[in-house]
Amino acid sequence: MVEAVGKVGDKVRLEGWADTIRDHGKITFIDLRDRSGVIQCVGTGLEHVSPESVIEIQGVVAKRPEKLVNPKIKTGSVEIQIESLKVISPAAELPFDIGTEDLNLDLPTLLDYRALTLRHKKQQAIFKLQAVIIDAFRTSLMKKDFVEFQAPSIISSIPEGGAEVFKVKYFDHDAYLSQSPQLYKSLLVGIFERVFSVDQIFRAEPSVTTRHVAEATSLDAEFGFIDSWKDVLEMEEYVVRFIFSEVEKRCAEELALFGATVPKLSEKIPVLKLREAQEIIFQRSGRDVRAEKDLAPEDEREICKWSLEEKGSDLIFISHFPTKKKPFYVYPDPEDPAYGYSVDLLGRGVEWSSGGQRINDYKTILEHLKEWGLKEADVELYLQSFKFGVPPLGGFALGAERMTMHILGLSNIREASLFPRDMERIDLRISR
Amino acid sequence: MVEAVGKVGDKVRLEGWADTIRDHGKITFIDLRDRSGVIQCVGTGLEHVSPESVIEIQGVVAKRPEKLVNPKIKTGSVEIQIESLKVISPAAELPFDIGTEDLNLDLPTLLDYRALTLRHKKQQAIFKLQAVIIDAFRTSLMKKDFVEFQAPSIISSIPEGGAEVFKVKYFDHDAYLSQSPQLYKSLLVGIFERVFSVDQIFRAEPSVTTRHVAEATSLDAEFGFIDSWKDVLEMEEYVVRFIFSEVEKRCAEELALFGATVPKLSEKIPVLKLREAQEIIFQRSGRDVRAEKDLAPEDEREICKWSLEEKGSDLIFISHFPTKKKPFYVYPDPEDPAYGYSVDLLGRGVEWSSGGQRINDYKTILEHLKEWGLKEADVELYLQSFKFGVPPLGGFALGAERMTMHILGLSNIREASLFPRDMERIDLRISR
Repeated sequence: MVEAVGKVGDKVRLEGWADTIRDHGKITFIDLRDRSGVIQCVGTGLEHVSPESVIEIQGVVAKRPEKLVNPKIKTGSVEIQIESLKVISPAAELPFDIGTEDLNLDLPTLLDYRALTLRHKKQQAIFKLQAVIIDAFRTSLMKKDFVEFQAPSIISSIPEGGAEVFKVKYFDHDAYLSQSPQLYKSLLVGIFERVFSVDQIFRAEPSVTTRHVAEATSLDAEFGFIDSWKDVLEMEEYVVRFIFSEVEKRCAEELALFGATVPKLSEKIPVLKLREAQEIIFQRSGRDVRAEKDLAPEDEREICKWSLEEKGSDLIFISHFPTKKKPFYVYPDPEDPAYGYSVDLLGRGVEWSSGGQRINDYKTILEHLKEWGLKEADVELYLQSFKFGVPPLGGFALGAERMTMHILGLSNIREASLFPRDMERIDLRISR
Repeated sequence: MVEAVGKVGDKVRLEGWADTIRDHGKITFIDLRDRSGVIQCVGTGLEHVSPESVIEIQGVVAKRPEKLVNPKIKTGSVEIQIESLKVISPAAELPFDIGTEDLNLDLPTLLDYRALTLRHKKQQAIFKLQAVIIDAFRTSLMKKDFVEFQAPSIISSIPEGGAEVFKVKYFDHDAYLSQSPQLYKSLLVGIFERVFSVDQIFRAEPSVTTRHVAEATSLDAEFGFIDSWKDVLEMEEYVVRFIFSEVEKRCAEELALFGATVPKLSEKIPVLKLREAQEIIFQRSGRDVRAEKDLAPEDEREICKWSLEEKGSDLIFISHFPTKKKPFYVYPDPEDPAYGYSVDLLGRGVEWSSGGQRINDYKTILEHLKEWGLKEADVELYLQSFKFGVPPLGGFALGAERMTMHILGLSNIREASLFPRDMERIDLRISR
């Protein structure tokens, strides 16, 4: 569409969707939409065209009178005077108007009509921005010499218990859907040193919340030869800054549609130990959570508020969770082994990522498995890697939907998933 | 490692794996390996170091005598004179030598020790090359304005029957693992016009062959506003050429390890209709397959031989398969509707990809569903897209493992899958 602006007086042939149609007596205005934007077309005898139909227009590019110029769109200085119009693929009558500034639909309707509602420019914007997040994640790590790998989704055992795991009938056996590529990415550090992957992960969350979906996109990175757990934070901070910078550069329009900005960062993302964060929460709110093993949602909101007010950062790292409440591979702090080098990244009031340093010493891993009550047979391939020498390592996983949601300020994670799955829905509602 | 070449006389600190260890009386040579390559280190009192251990070496970079220079490796002009060595993570005794030029293991052993055998440089090379294929696939399409999307793996129905489908227990319902993002990518053309995705796909192949795995990586693209089915071939050819060119540029070492070259292409990839290909096969081999509905493996080999001999191309497109043997969405050739615009890409004797033009007319889709004996309810979201106007469209899917396998000349697809799954194996053998 956009090229037409430079072609005033020329005859052009354009294809796209009839985005909005306005009848003014005999004259009809059609905003024609394609992936590059919209352009106003005007003609007569067009009563047969229905909104969202795919059409081909031939016509002449004309300059609009000064007072009719629309500065909000790239093609706002011109219009197409239609000479002929062909309907390539007619659209049935729409169940609701999708040509409005906002869709104003409740979530079930938004999702029941997903193939239609995604045509709205704000819905499209969510997933264009998400594609940039994912692309920037990969690019940032390739620049640091990470190798991409494809993590398997089907796994043979669930070392950490099966509460929220989907079971698969795998020929004559039971198998499961992976909740995380954690063990694979860690064992691959023994091979490639630095790896990343973009994967679908699966969680049989038995409740419907605004922040969980059953299938999500996980952005995973892991690397070896770290000198300390702080190297992991540094790498994650680099990646997140890179993503924000790409989103700002490439998604100005998408951000503007939502009145959104990327999260504010100070020179360095602040880091607090869990106990320090809890003390601050107590001081600020009077709620004494200082003995809790994790942060509750309201704690996350409070500490993020503190971070923004006191440190000028929308993001904050929380480290040193109780070792025993975390997976067997978390590296205990040698100075206080009851707490480990596990690190969550919180942003705008919620958890975006978890990561940290992992144990690389084979014997310690075996000891932890025993202490955690896990079977060696369930992590056999993982153990194989560490048995033959793996350097000190760590990594992190960012949720693509969560990042999208909290950059744009969406209220439900389902809005940030193209085809969200939950207890009640796989595309359409499953109990009908 | 590589930077050390420019630091003759300097003291350096290097970390990596003890790749090979050669004891010459009191003196020990250790090839130290990291992700950048290997470097020879030499010292005394190193009998305690076991192969594959992660070590830190401090020493001085020394020029090798002229006659000891190894031109095969980037660091071959220098060696490190070890002053101190620290074992960071000791390796247990290896079950077999992995320091040889080739691994020479049978496939079950190669896979039973996957976390170890992947350390071999040829095994690493396979997956570095695969990462380049996948990255080049994405880059080629982003250059053409395609939007990346994340296809869901869990689906609610199997419109085309469930023989080779994995079933998932999804809360209180049955669900399935996706065999292809086909319907999603097509319906998204109604939204983004041009889309691509890199996905895990799942196939419950009930036999063990050299060319099937239960979980594979599919490189999918789909786009609208095509003028003809030939536009799809052109786009696919562009993508494949782009991938080959990137692999040549970025994987010279990996190709050399296998004595491999990217497939040979003539100016244009030849295109034959199935019936034309069958006639050629009959003329060349005497085997009369002219009434068959598809090409058998030996037919694929024969027509690829013809393509290379007669057209100078390792790749060939085969189009116009019988409409009724293909999925409901394949666009029938209007001049002979018994054959459709479905197109396979064959390379070096096997199928690499399938694709073609899809039906975009809503009414025709409904008719086909009925003819194919399928239920509208099973493709409801797909239908929703086409009900509201979708342009003429097509696309293709390339198998990442197949491309890797046939670029490098591997004999079994499992070698081109990091963690292959089949009837008998999920990482380790499942019936033990």
